[in-house]
Amino acid sequence: MINKAPTIVALLSGRDIPGLVSRVSSHISERGGNIIHADQHHDQEAGIFFQRIEWIPQNVDIAAEEEAFRQFASEIGMSAKVANSAKRVKMVIMVSKMDHCFHDLILRWKAEEFNCDIVGVISNHGDLQETSASYGIPYHVIPVTRETKEAAEKKQLELLRELKADIVVLARYMQVLSGPFLKAIEIPVINIHHSFLPAFAGGRPYHQAYSRGVKLTGATAHYATEVLDDGPIINQDVIRISHRHNVKDLIRKGRHLEKTVLGQAVSWHLDNRILVYGNKTVVFD
Amino acid sequence: MINKAPTIVALLSGRDIPGLVSRVSSHISERGGNIIHADQHHDQEAGIFFQRIEWIPQNVDIAAEEEAFRQFASEIGMSAKVANSAKRVKMVIMVSKMDHCFHDLILRWKAEEFNCDIVGVISNHGDLQETSASYGIPYHVIPVTRETKEAAEKKQLELLRELKADIVVLARYMQVLSGPFLKAIEIPVINIHHSFLPAFAGGRPYHQAYSRGVKLTGATAHYATEVLDDGPIINQDVIRISHRHNVKDLIRKGRHLEKTVLGQAVSWHLDNRILVYGNKTVVFD
Amino acid sequence: MINKAPTIVALLSGRDIPGLVSRVSSHISERGGNIIHADQHHDQEAGIFFQRIEWIPQNVDIAAEEEAFRQFASEIGMSAKVANSAKRVKMVIMVSKMDHCFHDLILRWKAEEFNCDIVGVISNHGDLQETSASYGIPYHVIPVTRETKEAAEKKQLELLRELKADIVVLARYMQVLSGPFLKAIEIPVINIHHSFLPAFAGGRPYHQAYSRGVKLTGATAHYATEVLDDGPIINQDVIRISHRHNVKDLIRKGRHLEKTVLGQAVSWHLDNRILVYGNKTVVFD
Amino acid sequence: MINKAPTIVALLSGRDIPGLVSRVSSHISERGGNIIHADQHHDQEAGIFFQRIEWIPQNVDIAAEEEAFRQFASEIGMSAKVANSAKRVKMVIMVSKMDHCFHDLILRWKAEEFNCDIVGVISNHGDLQETSASYGIPYHVIPVTRETKEAAEKKQLELLRELKADIVVLARYMQVLSGPFLKAIEIPVINIHHSFLPAFAGGRPYHQAYSRGVKLTGATAHYATEVLDDGPIINQDVIRISHRHNVKDLIRKGRHLEKTVLGQAVSWHLDNRILVYGNKTVVFD
Repeated sequence: MINKAPTIVALLSGRDIPGLVSRVSSHISERGGNIIHADQHHDQEAGIFFQRIEWIPQNVDIAAEEEAFRQFASEIGMSAKVANSAKRVKMVIMVSKMDHCFHDLILRWKAEEFNCDIVGVISNHGDLQETSASYGIPYHVIPVTRETKEAAEKKQLELLRELKADIVVLARYMQVLSGPFLKAIEIPVINIHHSFLPAFAGGRPYHQAYSRGVKLTGATAHYATEVLDDGPIINQDVIRISHRHNVKDLIRKGRHLEKTVLGQAVSWHLDNRILVYGNKTVVFD
Repeated sequence: MINKAPTIVALLSGRDIPGLVSRVSSHISERGGNIIHADQHHDQEAGIFFQRIEWIPQNVDIAAEEEAFRQFASEIGMSAKVANSAKRVKMVIMVSKMDHCFHDLILRWKAEEFNCDIVGVISNHGDLQETSASYGIPYHVIPVTRETKEAAEKKQLELLRELKADIVVLARYMQVLSGPFLKAIEIPVINIHHSFLPAFAGGRPYHQAYSRGVKLTGATAHYATEVLDDGPIINQDVIRISHRHNVKDLIRKGRHLEKTVLGQAVSWHLDNRILVYGNKTVVFD
Repeated sequence: MINKAPTIVALLSGRDIPGLVSRVSSHISERGGNIIHADQHHDQEAGIFFQRIEWIPQNVDIAAEEEAFRQFASEIGMSAKVANSAKRVKMVIMVSKMDHCFHDLILRWKAEEFNCDIVGVISNHGDLQETSASYGIPYHVIPVTRETKEAAEKKQLELLRELKADIVVLARYMQVLSGPFLKAIEIPVINIHHSFLPAFAGGRPYHQAYSRGVKLTGATAHYATEVLDDGPIINQDVIRISHRHNVKDLIRKGRHLEKTVLGQAVSWHLDNRILVYGNKTVVFD
Repeated sequence: MINKAPTIVALLSGRDIPGLVSRVSSHISERGGNIIHADQHHDQEAGIFFQRIEWIPQNVDIAAEEEAFRQFASEIGMSAKVANSAKRVKMVIMVSKMDHCFHDLILRWKAEEFNCDIVGVISNHGDLQETSASYGIPYHVIPVTRETKEAAEKKQLELLRELKADIVVLARYMQVLSGPFLKAIEIPVINIHHSFLPAFAGGRPYHQAYSRGVKLTGATAHYATEVLDDGPIINQDVIRISHRHNVKDLIRKGRHLEKTVLGQAVSWHLDNRILVYGNKTVVFD
């Protein structure tokens, strides 16, 4: 959801030592900030502390407050991602031909559920060009074949930099992104996989699910990493199916699930609610 | 779940003023306490601040620490419920003839899910006497008829005081507790109602649900108040039903739902996760 | 889902007498029909038999086969609704300003989930005129005020007749339809109410839910009848909420639930899967 | 649920040819039977027909009617499993030390949800001996070590034959049953696996789930086959978890899920609602 008053959100993580909750809140209070949300998690096995803290700064120079917090975090030995909630990040959607997640993301954005600007759509096909135009979003076709993949990914990277993208959402983009691409991109990439991972990773998960005879079908939103369908999981959900449902039914029913799971994951990301550590996520929802 | 190390849990509520998060955590830190959980909620419309904070005190005299916190809370104008997690509260179960919630509560307790002692069962019927004995729990029969209700409730109150009960759980106890009884009891009473309240309050909710043709049937755990089925809701859940299910099926399917919803509510209560305000609850789960 | 081969679907109901399953299937088999789906329900309390049966007729004159079945049903004393699955019914959407259900219905239709033609949109506001045009669907503005309501409803009825509408879907249409209108309309009207009926009928259900402090919020698709929010329920679902969610959050989260619940209900209706009896539905899903 | 009137239930499967629904129902009607439930499924890809049909026979000699139906089924080339609903099958529970599924199965049985007799418990440990006795169920300890496994399984088989068991339920029995044992047993074995299969098959699924960082944890009831955790799935469900839950929490929360998923699967099996084909199930629920 879109915050009305300008706030600062910090996502902190680091070695868990006594007194952190108090030190962080004191730092903010001493500078006149008013904490409106604070949530923390202690991973007791790993000895790691995670916190999301959001406050209304007294200082109108928000950039200065952000910087002051970054310095404070570094002094107490914590990693910190600090964001100004009033600053809208730039999102790029990558899509192929299937349009359900594409429409859903844009309609959520138009309904002001997403605190971002959608600055472009990249597709390996031209099918959604006109629809994208009707939404007022620039559409870029970069065809991909086995032969041209390397060159195409280079173009995609250039375009993302040009668009100053902060986040890429794969809305059922049907090409596997290469390891080098994901290394080079330097911004988070959220993907929706149409199964309950780690079950049915890879291609044709609805066919795999049908063939195994499962009684629930799922969807998983995760950050894309170099290992296919293995990145940190953000959100998952399932729906009940039965022997009456064939692969086509799974595809049809799954569409609505994919939209819901992806939309929620993107919303959490944009609200700075997600901390990644190792191959897992902490979601302060 | 049962906490291993002795901790103090405080449930705070009061007028929301800037700096509360920081002041509370500073108070604890300055006395050497190590905060292991802190969660807060700001009701922005009502201007109320709610917090659950749990810490390992440095001082081995836990009672002194509890008292110090109570005094601190009063100084900053907050109501506080402070508990020592190592102290086991005493629970009494009230039951009639239906035994599914009765078994479920006791089995959760035996599986160490409940941080309490079950010190007795009160029933208006003798049916579960033997079963209760096999669990090693004293069973008290206090019959209730329209004529004897007042006297029976007096006996129940005396018994609850004798047993030093801290919490009463109505495990499908089929008598309406009177207003005077609920006023006099002075300890929380958790009830399970077999519908999704406020739909189908009062008697025979499964019959009501069947007759209305709803497609989901629910269960609601709430604190009992003088107004029947109107107390603060703690937990609710539903399951899907269809035209194929008659009233008997609803009763059968509902049983398992009632157990789950009630068991979770009791667990939250015993872990000091619930703050009641007005007719609502804040559950720090 | 859209059926490929032309089939006949019959929805039968009537007094339950032995041998009905056999008589119905024999009638179809004897005329060379191949039954591809048959599902029945016996309401044992009320003594009523319900059946949905779908078959591929041997006779290419489908209208004749339909007529033969209607006659057969009448001979065995059953009510029958008989439909040719290849015939696309005409749907009209009524909408005000909120557009989430409007978009969802149209996108499901474009994705070929709905076996119908959407022949028009009627609104009391002009807001969605342009969007409707971009989807290629005629949009009709009929303003409604307290004073003009009767005249407006007359216009709506005329328009529905002109459009030869078979079904009206209220996609968060924010006007209460009058009793006389609903009597006169003679085609089914599906409404989405944003609560778990019968809880929170009437106006502002999210506000009601927030104020009662429920832990789940719901949506209900039902056939509109003269009594507000009291018609036969087709589909319901809920999502979990907590004290953290204010009314705005309920509205935002509820939107996605409303879409899912309404979309499924419309799909069942169009696939002739719903039998209404009294104030309830049998859904052969 | 337990059927009151004696009925016959047939589970049919075989090559799908036109007219089967009609032929089966005619056969029953012609012999004076009254069909009270009929549900069928056509696997259109595989060309297989499945049906569950239940009727009240006119003939009081139910065994003769069963035999007549078996012969009829064979004439039309269908496999048939025919059962008299009044005949109670004999169930044996196998358990180790964890008792949650053990209690749940027995309490459902005592609440008359299961149409069977529980004729014995087999365990590799003595821990639940006394509890089993308090339920009035004979308890047999057959210790299993790596060295004695073969001999132990031989004893188990002998005991199952002695008890005339019709169905074995593994209520968190912590030993892998060998291929030869499962070949020799000749009666269905239902197992509960504490994950959403095929994810996290094998040992310590809660640890696997925790380590992968999934956002839902599941349970799967399936028929045990020679390949571990790979048999036909009967029922599955999941619950939401988050970063706040460690392995112990998963175990605790999972317990209640395991009970629900297993209880429902056993109930369907006992009501003759499950047809196995290949590695999948058709569940006529």
